[in-house]
Amino acid sequence: VNFTSDNTYGVAPEILAAINAANTGTVPSYGRDSGTHRLKELFSRLFERDVAVFPVISGTAANALSLATFAPPHGAIFCHAESHSMVDECGAPEFYTHGAKLIEVGGANAKLDPILLETAIARLRKGDSHSVQPAVVTITQATERGAVYTVQEVQTISRLAKGHGMALHMDGARFANALAHLKCTPADLTWRAGVDVLSFGATKNGALGAEAVVFFDPECVKDFEYRRMKGGHLLSKMRFVSVQLETYISNGLWLRQAERANALTAKLVAGLSAAGVEITNQPQTNAVFVRLPDETVARLRKGGAQFYDWEDSKDGKTVIRLVTSFATPDEDVSRFLSLVKE
Amino acid sequence: VNFTSDNTYGVAPEILAAINAANTGTVPSYGRDSGTHRLKELFSRLFERDVAVFPVISGTAANALSLATFAPPHGAIFCHAESHSMVDECGAPEFYTHGAKLIEVGGANAKLDPILLETAIARLRKGDSHSVQPAVVTITQATERGAVYTVQEVQTISRLAKGHGMALHMDGARFANALAHLKCTPADLTWRAGVDVLSFGATKNGALGAEAVVFFDPECVKDFEYRRMKGGHLLSKMRFVSVQLETYISNGLWLRQAERANALTAKLVAGLSAAGVEITNQPQTNAVFVRLPDETVARLRKGGAQFYDWEDSKDGKTVIRLVTSFATPDEDVSRFLSLVKE
Amino acid sequence: VNFTSDNTYGVAPEILAAINAANTGTVPSYGRDSGTHRLKELFSRLFERDVAVFPVISGTAANALSLATFAPPHGAIFCHAESHSMVDECGAPEFYTHGAKLIEVGGANAKLDPILLETAIARLRKGDSHSVQPAVVTITQATERGAVYTVQEVQTISRLAKGHGMALHMDGARFANALAHLKCTPADLTWRAGVDVLSFGATKNGALGAEAVVFFDPECVKDFEYRRMKGGHLLSKMRFVSVQLETYISNGLWLRQAERANALTAKLVAGLSAAGVEITNQPQTNAVFVRLPDETVARLRKGGAQFYDWEDSKDGKTVIRLVTSFATPDEDVSRFLSLVKE
Amino acid sequence: VNFTSDNTYGVAPEILAAINAANTGTVPSYGRDSGTHRLKELFSRLFERDVAVFPVISGTAANALSLATFAPPHGAIFCHAESHSMVDECGAPEFYTHGAKLIEVGGANAKLDPILLETAIARLRKGDSHSVQPAVVTITQATERGAVYTVQEVQTISRLAKGHGMALHMDGARFANALAHLKCTPADLTWRAGVDVLSFGATKNGALGAEAVVFFDPECVKDFEYRRMKGGHLLSKMRFVSVQLETYISNGLWLRQAERANALTAKLVAGLSAAGVEITNQPQTNAVFVRLPDETVARLRKGGAQFYDWEDSKDGKTVIRLVTSFATPDEDVSRFLSLVKE
Repeated sequence: VNFTSDNTYGVAPEILAAINAANTGTVPSYGRDSGTHRLKELFSRLFERDVAVFPVISGTAANALSLATFAPPHGAIFCHAESHSMVDECGAPEFYTHGAKLIEVGGANAKLDPILLETAIARLRKGDSHSVQPAVVTITQATERGAVYTVQEVQTISRLAKGHGMALHMDGARFANALAHLKCTPADLTWRAGVDVLSFGATKNGALGAEAVVFFDPECVKDFEYRRMKGGHLLSKMRFVSVQLETYISNGLWLRQAERANALTAKLVAGLSAAGVEITNQPQTNAVFVRLPDETVARLRKGGAQFYDWEDSKDGKTVIRLVTSFATPDEDVSRFLSLVKE
Repeated sequence: VNFTSDNTYGVAPEILAAINAANTGTVPSYGRDSGTHRLKELFSRLFERDVAVFPVISGTAANALSLATFAPPHGAIFCHAESHSMVDECGAPEFYTHGAKLIEVGGANAKLDPILLETAIARLRKGDSHSVQPAVVTITQATERGAVYTVQEVQTISRLAKGHGMALHMDGARFANALAHLKCTPADLTWRAGVDVLSFGATKNGALGAEAVVFFDPECVKDFEYRRMKGGHLLSKMRFVSVQLETYISNGLWLRQAERANALTAKLVAGLSAAGVEITNQPQTNAVFVRLPDETVARLRKGGAQFYDWEDSKDGKTVIRLVTSFATPDEDVSRFLSLVKE
Repeated sequence: VNFTSDNTYGVAPEILAAINAANTGTVPSYGRDSGTHRLKELFSRLFERDVAVFPVISGTAANALSLATFAPPHGAIFCHAESHSMVDECGAPEFYTHGAKLIEVGGANAKLDPILLETAIARLRKGDSHSVQPAVVTITQATERGAVYTVQEVQTISRLAKGHGMALHMDGARFANALAHLKCTPADLTWRAGVDVLSFGATKNGALGAEAVVFFDPECVKDFEYRRMKGGHLLSKMRFVSVQLETYISNGLWLRQAERANALTAKLVAGLSAAGVEITNQPQTNAVFVRLPDETVARLRKGGAQFYDWEDSKDGKTVIRLVTSFATPDEDVSRFLSLVKE
Repeated sequence: VNFTSDNTYGVAPEILAAINAANTGTVPSYGRDSGTHRLKELFSRLFERDVAVFPVISGTAANALSLATFAPPHGAIFCHAESHSMVDECGAPEFYTHGAKLIEVGGANAKLDPILLETAIARLRKGDSHSVQPAVVTITQATERGAVYTVQEVQTISRLAKGHGMALHMDGARFANALAHLKCTPADLTWRAGVDVLSFGATKNGALGAEAVVFFDPECVKDFEYRRMKGGHLLSKMRFVSVQLETYISNGLWLRQAERANALTAKLVAGLSAAGVEITNQPQTNAVFVRLPDETVARLRKGGAQFYDWEDSKDGKTVIRLVTSFATPDEDVSRFLSLVKE
């Protein structure tokens, strides 16, 4: 029973099969292969408009490169205090932007609160060279707390960002999970709602290592290819990354997998609620956070369950995080629920 | 007939099989899996001493991260004028070192000339804050011109570097090809000859995407892990990178593949020489550079041969580069030679 | 009546005289002159221990260079949410540290609250490469709100910083004003209380343009001189900066000037309090913040008073900042108080 | 007799008087004073067109900030192998550009050779993200070897730069000396010849510490003010820098001083030539390089002359550099010549 992260699981069989099938003959290196070129058409169709798409192999690279395209060194990037960019990337955005400032903003369920965002923006003095200048707002969809921004919520933040001349970035490491929850189109959740650039994640949901940076206005790409190269993220045998992305979005694989991961968490949530366990997040996708007595936490671990403590123990209780993936066995949920109820 | 680059070929069957076999169950992410841990032991055995080893997925990342570990922002990095770090990485070393200066040095066959190196070092004023300070010498083994530094040559450069308080980095994107040519031990060609850090390449010689940064003195690792993370190069499903490296160095696979690639070039060289073609490099590994009349070049292309022009046409002749790989078909060599002789 | 900033005043006559006197003959450039060398002795005597001292010409440079000496690119710098480094330097610390993360911490009167600091530090995961690592705590003495840390308060923060392996930096742009208030020795307020590096300000208190970076342990200087040069802060005619610093700390000039500035603010505070004006800060040095009805604010401006609005108008009232300097005329205080009472 | 550098001399009396006169009353800080604003008009008149002008306090800052305005992190900056930016700024351009690559080009008398420049540019692969991209050409006027580019030579380089989409920067640390030699207008030597941005030096020629970055097309200024602030180069008491620049260019002071410095060198050259001394540069401004027997060099030093050895002793002879300034006493030249002839 491993609920530590969706990262602990391997590769979807369809994607691995595609990698194997791609291992034939010679193709141009460094992304000049036909498979990589095809991504533009495939992603444009998926998003119902002409997009620019660049494969990379880590979510941190996708985020940092996206942000650096829109934020100058004297720019401010507004992000949630719990966002991956803020707390889990060791300052990669600061590195790739050459020293932009990340400004943390609060909000329940790791979702940016528009009021707090507005306040944070207002603190900067526009046009005053002593102050960093508003450049980008970044939101995570689904959030690090398993919650989802509705299309309207994305629009609200986008209007706010645009009103201050800022771009909107979406960290979609778990974009599929959000989409599976909302059941809207990829276009509605992104550019139609004002998103300028998306870190389109595939790794957590079944790829071996593949993310795509999607620019909804190809004009905005600017120096992206040079930045990617300077960061060491242009791969020689790119065909093997691109084929993962192609397979991932073909025939609805990505959404089926996200639906399965979400459904497992929903089952977990139902069982935990029935057992009277305190749920501390809004578990809309594939993660649920629960507060449990420390003895229970210990007993679960003893029983073979793996997961992360998310906060330090307080008053004898600890908040833990449970994440399900496209490949989590069904029986893991029931086994975990049995352990809880013991 | 594709002689453009060893990068155009895919993955060795053994390595792909290992990736497939690794796709089972859950393992800790971000390099905390047992396969990644095992690399330390395997590489220590390979190099006959206790090393620190870090998998990354591009040669540019391996080089830039290696150099940044030894060169401060005010450091000077001496490299060959034709080296990958100097001309093919879009300034990745400058980015990762936060602005160190790469100083180009000449030498035949893309090998650093020790005399020219000494002269270049002497131009810097040590201890004067107006001048960048000697920090690292980097050499490519085998070089971008297919040549190989002998163990003695590496020692000479190492002594020179050490005499000025500098570290020695080896860009081993084609380390296996060099070793296959020299038939010495990996230890003799690296730390015993004074190399401090090695970009150990596997991608060009049969991996899907896997390089290793090898520090011969684990004390020197310093901030490496933070730099790698900041660069977006710590992969979540690291097991699939590590297993490539493990398979690559197991049972002599890497050397067998390099020997094959070298042998194909040797055959090509023999045939071209016999045909009276002018060879412009010292083809010790898997690349040969030849000067051919422009009509011949055009005829070869028409005949289906693929390769890069390496220099602009001059006096009706062009220098082209021919690279063979572990997977180049034997018949490609003979077909190419027939085309030449037509 | 100009209370906008101590920066709006010029140069103390003694300091200007010294600049004039220094304009004779030839001296070595770039800080190799005897006047610059003498600073080491003078500052060592002032601080009662062997220090290393480097003149620069802006407070931002002093702060950013100090922080960069202790914070690696993957470091975290804890500072007050209202500190100059956080909000008034356009990200200079991020630039000079090559992308370290500034983490804001709250506290009344722009003083770091140790409890909030402890909490902020605890959020970082030590040794985990996904997280930036604790590197420096920076405090402003006196603060941007005119308050002063007591020696004990500095000690508390220092212990906290040291307990997490961090250095302590003091932004002393108004160090003299703090010292004049506390009446302790420079040594007691700095290294004896655990400060590792001080931005010793002189410009706001009477210099033309001169700040000193003071390292209390010369071992910690490390790459400072190279960083200063790379930043373009090594001046050719350094003698004219050094002589300002020498004159400033000689014969108690600096403290006399700070005492005068503080005394003027104290008089202002007394008058404002008597007039029933709401004072919003703890005016221990040369700045007082008051909340006044917008009509009063307008009337003061109409009457010729200059000052900054510090917060946006709210409920018909605005917080304004009043700063006095070493050179503010006595009558400006009485004229301002008369204007208030009109 | 001090011929080490024009930096060793102090401040012109007119400029120091102006600094003293500026020390009155309160003025807005950080360059919002009327004196700083006036520079725009004064420099626009001087250059016969609408320019943007920014005072800074070091030549290194002026150069690095100028280059960073035109060169992205993936840009290439072409400069002479002996240029200040290449060898005397500890990598400041690399720092301010966030890792652009400086590419050295040869040429006699430290002047860029257009043919070599063309060759160097041709080596970069335009549009290929593996390669840094042509961004800026920088030339020093007068050069580090005391030579001057004619207006036509500047035009030739400009055409070359523009033909490759590059900007042209002029490091004018000794711009006045070049102008005094050529006797053309400032406009002819800069924008009319294709210069986009000029580091206009005043410090070496009589200021205390003042340089100006002059953009000939105000559209090109872009992020300059933010970069300057991030670098810590926006001074609070800017009036004292601006007044130096104003006085410097008023009433022809700058040109008179440069003429005097040049004339002293001319006298030195005449005397040395008459004495049969080998002159190794083209001494068009205020520096002459001569090759002398080591015994002569020793004797000169013993006799009280100060200067730098410019190259290591070879075959019993050493090349030394002699620099005259606006303030070098006339008798120093005759005393030096007497020493030579002894």
